[in-house]
Amino acid sequence: MIAKLTTPYSFLDDYSEGAHPRLLEALIRTNSTQQTGYGSDEYSQEARQLLLTQLNATEDEVSIHFVPSGTAANLISIASCLRPYEAVLAVQTGHIIDKEAGAIEATGHKIIPVPGVRGKMTPGNLETVLSQNTFFPHMAKPRLVYISNATELGTVYSRQELKELSDLCRRRDLLMLVDGARMGVALTAEVNDVALRDLVDYTDIFWIGGTKMGALFGEAIVVRRALAEGFEFHMKQRGALMGKSRVLGVQFSELFRDGLFFELARHANAMARRIADQFVRMGWELTAETETNQVFVIVPDTKLPQLEERIRFYAWQRRTQTQSTVIRIVTSWATDESQVDRLCEWISQN
Amino acid sequence: MIAKLTTPYSFLDDYSEGAHPRLLEALIRTNSTQQTGYGSDEYSQEARQLLLTQLNATEDEVSIHFVPSGTAANLISIASCLRPYEAVLAVQTGHIIDKEAGAIEATGHKIIPVPGVRGKMTPGNLETVLSQNTFFPHMAKPRLVYISNATELGTVYSRQELKELSDLCRRRDLLMLVDGARMGVALTAEVNDVALRDLVDYTDIFWIGGTKMGALFGEAIVVRRALAEGFEFHMKQRGALMGKSRVLGVQFSELFRDGLFFELARHANAMARRIADQFVRMGWELTAETETNQVFVIVPDTKLPQLEERIRFYAWQRRTQTQSTVIRIVTSWATDESQVDRLCEWISQN
Amino acid sequence: MIAKLTTPYSFLDDYSEGAHPRLLEALIRTNSTQQTGYGSDEYSQEARQLLLTQLNATEDEVSIHFVPSGTAANLISIASCLRPYEAVLAVQTGHIIDKEAGAIEATGHKIIPVPGVRGKMTPGNLETVLSQNTFFPHMAKPRLVYISNATELGTVYSRQELKELSDLCRRRDLLMLVDGARMGVALTAEVNDVALRDLVDYTDIFWIGGTKMGALFGEAIVVRRALAEGFEFHMKQRGALMGKSRVLGVQFSELFRDGLFFELARHANAMARRIADQFVRMGWELTAETETNQVFVIVPDTKLPQLEERIRFYAWQRRTQTQSTVIRIVTSWATDESQVDRLCEWISQN
Amino acid sequence: MIAKLTTPYSFLDDYSEGAHPRLLEALIRTNSTQQTGYGSDEYSQEARQLLLTQLNATEDEVSIHFVPSGTAANLISIASCLRPYEAVLAVQTGHIIDKEAGAIEATGHKIIPVPGVRGKMTPGNLETVLSQNTFFPHMAKPRLVYISNATELGTVYSRQELKELSDLCRRRDLLMLVDGARMGVALTAEVNDVALRDLVDYTDIFWIGGTKMGALFGEAIVVRRALAEGFEFHMKQRGALMGKSRVLGVQFSELFRDGLFFELARHANAMARRIADQFVRMGWELTAETETNQVFVIVPDTKLPQLEERIRFYAWQRRTQTQSTVIRIVTSWATDESQVDRLCEWISQN
Repeated sequence: MIAKLTTPYSFLDDYSEGAHPRLLEALIRTNSTQQTGYGSDEYSQEARQLLLTQLNATEDEVSIHFVPSGTAANLISIASCLRPYEAVLAVQTGHIIDKEAGAIEATGHKIIPVPGVRGKMTPGNLETVLSQNTFFPHMAKPRLVYISNATELGTVYSRQELKELSDLCRRRDLLMLVDGARMGVALTAEVNDVALRDLVDYTDIFWIGGTKMGALFGEAIVVRRALAEGFEFHMKQRGALMGKSRVLGVQFSELFRDGLFFELARHANAMARRIADQFVRMGWELTAETETNQVFVIVPDTKLPQLEERIRFYAWQRRTQTQSTVIRIVTSWATDESQVDRLCEWISQN
Repeated sequence: MIAKLTTPYSFLDDYSEGAHPRLLEALIRTNSTQQTGYGSDEYSQEARQLLLTQLNATEDEVSIHFVPSGTAANLISIASCLRPYEAVLAVQTGHIIDKEAGAIEATGHKIIPVPGVRGKMTPGNLETVLSQNTFFPHMAKPRLVYISNATELGTVYSRQELKELSDLCRRRDLLMLVDGARMGVALTAEVNDVALRDLVDYTDIFWIGGTKMGALFGEAIVVRRALAEGFEFHMKQRGALMGKSRVLGVQFSELFRDGLFFELARHANAMARRIADQFVRMGWELTAETETNQVFVIVPDTKLPQLEERIRFYAWQRRTQTQSTVIRIVTSWATDESQVDRLCEWISQN
Repeated sequence: MIAKLTTPYSFLDDYSEGAHPRLLEALIRTNSTQQTGYGSDEYSQEARQLLLTQLNATEDEVSIHFVPSGTAANLISIASCLRPYEAVLAVQTGHIIDKEAGAIEATGHKIIPVPGVRGKMTPGNLETVLSQNTFFPHMAKPRLVYISNATELGTVYSRQELKELSDLCRRRDLLMLVDGARMGVALTAEVNDVALRDLVDYTDIFWIGGTKMGALFGEAIVVRRALAEGFEFHMKQRGALMGKSRVLGVQFSELFRDGLFFELARHANAMARRIADQFVRMGWELTAETETNQVFVIVPDTKLPQLEERIRFYAWQRRTQTQSTVIRIVTSWATDESQVDRLCEWISQN
Repeated sequence: MIAKLTTPYSFLDDYSEGAHPRLLEALIRTNSTQQTGYGSDEYSQEARQLLLTQLNATEDEVSIHFVPSGTAANLISIASCLRPYEAVLAVQTGHIIDKEAGAIEATGHKIIPVPGVRGKMTPGNLETVLSQNTFFPHMAKPRLVYISNATELGTVYSRQELKELSDLCRRRDLLMLVDGARMGVALTAEVNDVALRDLVDYTDIFWIGGTKMGALFGEAIVVRRALAEGFEFHMKQRGALMGKSRVLGVQFSELFRDGLFFELARHANAMARRIADQFVRMGWELTAETETNQVFVIVPDTKLPQLEERIRFYAWQRRTQTQSTVIRIVTSWATDESQVDRLCEWISQN
């Protein structure tokens, strides 16, 4: 039988488990109703209404669409709003730079890298790169700024940071896209002061990740109405408009009906906080402040084998000079608190 | 409350309901195990083994991959094996011609239409079109033959037809791809004599549709090993490599563990057969022999309103001269037999 | 030595010779001046002004760009104004359908074929095809109508025909592009009543072919100002923005300085007219009225060998039932009148 | 009258003038012969034979094709040999990175930047970047190494450097492409020890630039035979297969008939050498050794206005701290020696 508990416990990523049980129950509850497809089902409609409420926005302001994966969300969002010669700007740690197998370039668009600061795009660095890419018509035209919140390094943007980027984008006629694969942990981070409505106000497209926050799969793309014309065409053309769109609608309805999405995100953050605090308390060094559900800690290479017996993690960076390794520990909505206890105990003993 | 039974009963398509309950149960049963993602989970491995058994093939012969939608299956399969100047040949009723929003062209490839016969590609018509597309280097080079089984008109290919197309393809150095969105009803059709192994022998890539046969979503692509190198790159690049690939693995394992897939397909066919037989028995005219789960029948326009009160269907073609309409009735794995009874009763009274 | 006269004389196409001597002289005369490149040279500026005068249009209305080939002109024009899901409509004999190696699809766009009438798009057939391509979001969205003038069959559009197509396009929110590889012979055809200004008024983009009308190479694209933003980016991105753009500027200046372009086109038409008239006079059957520089005539297969000794031509269509072949004879700006004499003499003797 | 000498004299680039007079004469001499097109003309055949002799290679080893521009040469070469998920590696100063408006990405391929050393790719840096791009299937697969010779900074690769890169590429199953927009000045540089045959031996595709070495336009692509299948399809599809291919054939025949190409390149290098030597002699600082036809020299900002009165140049880099500017002076096959005298005189007086 396959369905055994994997040992050691995995802190590898935030998509190791299935879905939150309430979502599965909702799928069963709604399973036998007959629905039209391709985004027109009643559950997707309900999910859109629930999300609009969360966004404090109207259908005149934004259009909401559900797609099966984060890469689909990014490539569709980007391809939907750029002309062929327009380029994307992203920090060098950005997911679209080197974790999506060239998905953006496959739609024809160049990505221009911008030096990041703790995983974040800064107005200063953005301005510098913009000033280096003005040689008409030899250089692709910078047109869309891509950021992730939470970032790939687990940091979050403050409201002020978002606003400053947004102001710069509008001054320079740039669009702004937020990859929200980990939007849940960002919005519920202790240091967060961004509201969903801010994303409507400050950006042009953003998406809210379900795959990493309790869903079997699925991301909700929120598009400024003026950019949304024909969005379903883009989805269909890229193979991301699901026949049984109900499956996405049901899940997002359940996530946003009464705050489950945020509750799960808070759990993920709390688990990471406990682990990070324990590391710090016991004198281990973090390479970055733990703002969301990712802990980056330096482990002496001599301790790695023991740790590997207890948990699974990602070896982020070898540091040969100090004979140590930066490892990444990721918690999730599904992280078992007793496993966190065991890990903290191990930390205290090492 | 949304989850009410839609009235009238829908025979619009074969993706109106959710998943077969056994698949949902399997998702719940396996939900809490920790799994790696992106196709490497244990359930996807199990599903591959179960499918290989059904195919009577080995991993040295074919590679199996799961993607979320039929359009993704088609565009990835095609883009994975063609060079930029190579074109696809498809019958004019082919799904990729006008039902996928230009998805194939969006990957850069031309589709050359071939006249179909009852929805099928014939060696004769294929030869004719090939002979018209040889003007090097002005015409895109014909390279891949795309067919659907069952076809978009509900017909199925015989083993002999497949073999003849395959022979021609090999003589002319053409690849062959079978869109199997409705492979289930094809392989269980009364007139069918094709085995899954035949597809391995006669074609280069084919896919087996789950979305229209009991799954929440998902299609299994079977690729000749020699063409499969880097296939996951293609999937990732197009946004079709799922983080929680387990969701596809669990469903396909359940469908192919003990024949559920074929059992469901037989139900769909049987329901269509009953409806078609009743129409014929009562003197209505079908525009095509009902070989799988689609019934095409001519309805006098005067009777349409009554019928619309009872069932939902697709108005396929107006025939103004005879004041009638060809309608399409589609059954599925989920079709409720009592609804078929009601429909047959109505037919007998009209 | 290579530079001998090819025997027999070629009526294969309208690009068998180099350039009109005046263009070569102009290249020599201007050769040593220093110019900036990529479209900013003074000769290109001069050519634009000369063309604007011919168009009776201003820089506020249209933008003019020079590219090296007809395929480049078509693919850049189309890719510049369509969103990814938008499709092109073209008659089945259209050059982009099967003579450009899939160049349009390689930019991501589907071409939807429309039945042509004598090589021309008609409002009726266009309406029919539009009505068959409205299934949102499954069908690519028809957005740009592509026509050629003269057509690939040598016919020309009347002003009224252009206007009706244009009216339909505007009613249906469609753009209109005219492939003008043979614009010269169209505008100087006996039956022509279209002025260059009409193209500004009735279409969105059109191009005027130099390659087939006296230039070494080069086509002038005229783009409605509202669609022209960033056009040089498109040209650069597709490899069609020439470093020494002066070469195109010098040639187009010479062609349009004092009517050389039209004079050459009239010569091509006159030569075709003489040949066509002689065929008709001597009782041969044309398959199409000769409106420009292409003659389509039915030749008994028994006479083909003799004719092949005298001239080179393109065997357009075998007619096995009548043991004959439709051949295409093309004249050009460079056609030697004495060779036309010889051909006419042969016709009179056969 | 436009055709005046631009004042001040331009050292902006190496494509400011037309063509070497011998090429224009050859165009006139061959102008009236009738030729087939699209690469099949006799002059292109002759040019191929002349080039094969220069390459000391046979038609079994390589295939030679002529295209109108450098961007076309790069995008066609790259798109012709990569699968959709394969990426290009290029140094950050590489022309394809930021001087071709995203042309490579527009064909669907990612470019992965590699830190350059004096504009050159080194095996060490290449290895490092390769080791950072192995995360299957999330990272695009590195597959083709793009270098320029001469580089964008005017430096040249030694035979040993080429060989080491080539060895590494073959060990790692990478293809190698050389952008030869400035191949002429590279091969005739004083420090050069690379022969054309070395490029056949060490690389997979390379091209020899005509546009910057005496032609009106045109580049000759040399493709390893095993990669050349269908190359004309790629050219046609991208709009780079010229109807009157004779124009390219005639020019390349003339350039390579008796060494004109190399003679012109030596002139360009000699002119740059004189300027560079004079700067050094008079105590100015170069930012890079002048190996070919580009001189990079630091000019105090106070002297810029005077210099701008005499010559045109490109301000490469402001150095605010030292109140100076690195300027780029480019010589060419057409550089007037008396203008070099005048510049040297000015240098000696400042």
